[in-house]
Amino acid sequence: MSRLVMKFGGTSVADLARIRSAAERVRREVERGHEVAVVVSAMAGKTNELVGWVRETSRLYDAREYDAVVASGENVTAGLMALTLQEMGVPARSWQGWQVPLVTTSAHGAARIERIETERLEAKFAEGLHAVIAGFQGISPEGRVTTLGRGGSDTSAVAFAAALGAERCDIYTDVDGVYTTDPRITKKARKLAKISYEEMLELASLGAKVLQTRSVELAMRHKVRVQVLSSFADEPGTLVCDEEEIVESRVVSGIAHTRDEAQVTVAGVRDRPGIAAALFGPLAQAGVNVDMIVQNVSADGRTDMTFTVPIDDVPRALKALEAARERGEIAFAQVLANEDVAKVSIVGIGMRSHAGVAHQMFQALAAENINIKVITTSEIKVSVLIDRKYLELAVQALHDAFELEKAS
Amino acid sequence: MSRLVMKFGGTSVADLARIRSAAERVRREVERGHEVAVVVSAMAGKTNELVGWVRETSRLYDAREYDAVVASGENVTAGLMALTLQEMGVPARSWQGWQVPLVTTSAHGAARIERIETERLEAKFAEGLHAVIAGFQGISPEGRVTTLGRGGSDTSAVAFAAALGAERCDIYTDVDGVYTTDPRITKKARKLAKISYEEMLELASLGAKVLQTRSVELAMRHKVRVQVLSSFADEPGTLVCDEEEIVESRVVSGIAHTRDEAQVTVAGVRDRPGIAAALFGPLAQAGVNVDMIVQNVSADGRTDMTFTVPIDDVPRALKALEAARERGEIAFAQVLANEDVAKVSIVGIGMRSHAGVAHQMFQALAAENINIKVITTSEIKVSVLIDRKYLELAVQALHDAFELEKAS
Repeated sequence: MSRLVMKFGGTSVADLARIRSAAERVRREVERGHEVAVVVSAMAGKTNELVGWVRETSRLYDAREYDAVVASGENVTAGLMALTLQEMGVPARSWQGWQVPLVTTSAHGAARIERIETERLEAKFAEGLHAVIAGFQGISPEGRVTTLGRGGSDTSAVAFAAALGAERCDIYTDVDGVYTTDPRITKKARKLAKISYEEMLELASLGAKVLQTRSVELAMRHKVRVQVLSSFADEPGTLVCDEEEIVESRVVSGIAHTRDEAQVTVAGVRDRPGIAAALFGPLAQAGVNVDMIVQNVSADGRTDMTFTVPIDDVPRALKALEAARERGEIAFAQVLANEDVAKVSIVGIGMRSHAGVAHQMFQALAAENINIKVITTSEIKVSVLIDRKYLELAVQALHDAFELEKAS
Repeated sequence: MSRLVMKFGGTSVADLARIRSAAERVRREVERGHEVAVVVSAMAGKTNELVGWVRETSRLYDAREYDAVVASGENVTAGLMALTLQEMGVPARSWQGWQVPLVTTSAHGAARIERIETERLEAKFAEGLHAVIAGFQGISPEGRVTTLGRGGSDTSAVAFAAALGAERCDIYTDVDGVYTTDPRITKKARKLAKISYEEMLELASLGAKVLQTRSVELAMRHKVRVQVLSSFADEPGTLVCDEEEIVESRVVSGIAHTRDEAQVTVAGVRDRPGIAAALFGPLAQAGVNVDMIVQNVSADGRTDMTFTVPIDDVPRALKALEAARERGEIAFAQVLANEDVAKVSIVGIGMRSHAGVAHQMFQALAAENINIKVITTSEIKVSVLIDRKYLELAVQALHDAFELEKAS
């Protein structure tokens, strides 16, 4: 009998009616002959309420108590979902993290899954009982309740799919799949039938917020086939899978964008060996995440360094750089921040075997007179930093240039 | 170092401000040198919300899932209370039922406590960590979450006080103690400084809803000294303790009353051996709880049986009796129900050694021309059934007759 993991996010279990409609989907899969493990989030809004109480109680809260409080939301949904399934004639029981157990590290609030002991689950499957599992939570080696951090329910679901040898992990959410680009920017955006783990990772970390990065990494490591689909529509979603399963050949799969980064230029840096380390050391110490980095060719022993940081980190970045200069660790003429920028990226596993993709991208942007400020590339991605006002134009031009509206 | 259990009910932890004010009381006891185990209920209203969801989901719900859902309310309060204490500089950690563990029977929804394993709690006390325990919940031998039924947090608190050898179990609630009678009926009602377990049991089961009967029984069995006091005032409450600790000698300690019972008279019953069994068998089978019972002297081989049942059970009682008559199990002329009655009881351990208490009660009622319909007595209690319209008059007359307004 084949196994299926079905995960329902907060909006998919926001009230009793939605829990019923989610349970109805589970019933259908059970009738198709699947053994199902359902993984549920807390009802929409509940986790925020609990987190709010913890923060109001204590500014520097004990993360162990945070976890004990916050994990309770999933327990409620798991029990209600099990009851709803029973009511529909589907034998089911709920599982809290410690009952499975799903053992995690002791890093409360952001614990990592160490292992899932499946013996008890298997014994209940053998009795014909489907499982409803409280997502997002586990138990530490010390016997305390842990949570996996925001979006942790996706990670729970993928981990259970791997541990139970599930044929697929269906993630029901409020979007109906992964698109070639943001449909709010171009109506030509098209839902992808399949996407590889690597592409999904690049898109996820670039701001296409469909699946948590951690859950995609986990799926890739354990080759878990993940389907993202809508709880509110009856149509297939997007399958995130191994590239070998993707027969269609595409050079570019999708276009991602983000407005959340700012450009920082440190001008007139005295160029000497180790200058990059001297510059980025203080930023790392200040907890500033640096992304795109470009170093200009040196002239007269001086150079300009340009990089991007999250917009919220700009003040901290500037402060760290000035402090390093005062301590005499680095010397530069001036530092400039520009928040009116946007990053646009093309992503596709086909780039590995196709030359000239970057060139095609630059041509498409040039044809629209869009100036490129910074470029970075990876094996399956090319990103450019441009003026923010050109963001929509750039995405549309690239979508057209790579013919993403056509099903490949 | 002496131990103290402090229990806070739902209204005492209804929001973050009240949790802070409860934690403040805990801090004071810690500063007085106590090791404290705090037992908390869910925030007021939360349990009802969860119960409502379960009932709406499933009419004949699986009690195991009911427990998994409903117990989550206490987890939230326990975590928030631990955080609040930490914030005040009181080292504390939360405990869920399964973490202690508090092991119960598998009777979900109304489980009985089997044992409390205190090793882990003791180890943490030894580290200087005070305990905040989610009340009302435990774990079954099968590893499922159980709840102790409504009012179960009081029972949890008393059980922990017994297991931890606590000097006292303080139950903080929204009343400030046990009164000689309902203060809404007479302003002369006086708060008792002490009351014996036996008296408290009689008062609790008679409708003075301060402590759950089960928790008093447990306290009596383990000689746990229980103090009932208000979370909203700074004054001592009422100590429920062994009668040996009560030096004052009182004949009557309190007057209880209830309007929740109806009188049922089965007239013209054919009197024969085993008639009581034949009559009350069908009622027991229908789940009707029969209280006061009186059988009249037989005349002409016929008798009248009078008893009381909870008002809500009257239709079921009548139906069960008619059905038994139709099956030929009993024969009677007619059955009459009267809901316009009230039960008034005097309770006091002093009755054991004082003769004439019942007589004094009947005289006081007769002086007000109050007719007594049914009488029942126990070792420390005399109850009478009267017309409901005389309830307040009867209570006031008895309060005066036994001089309960005077501190003894």
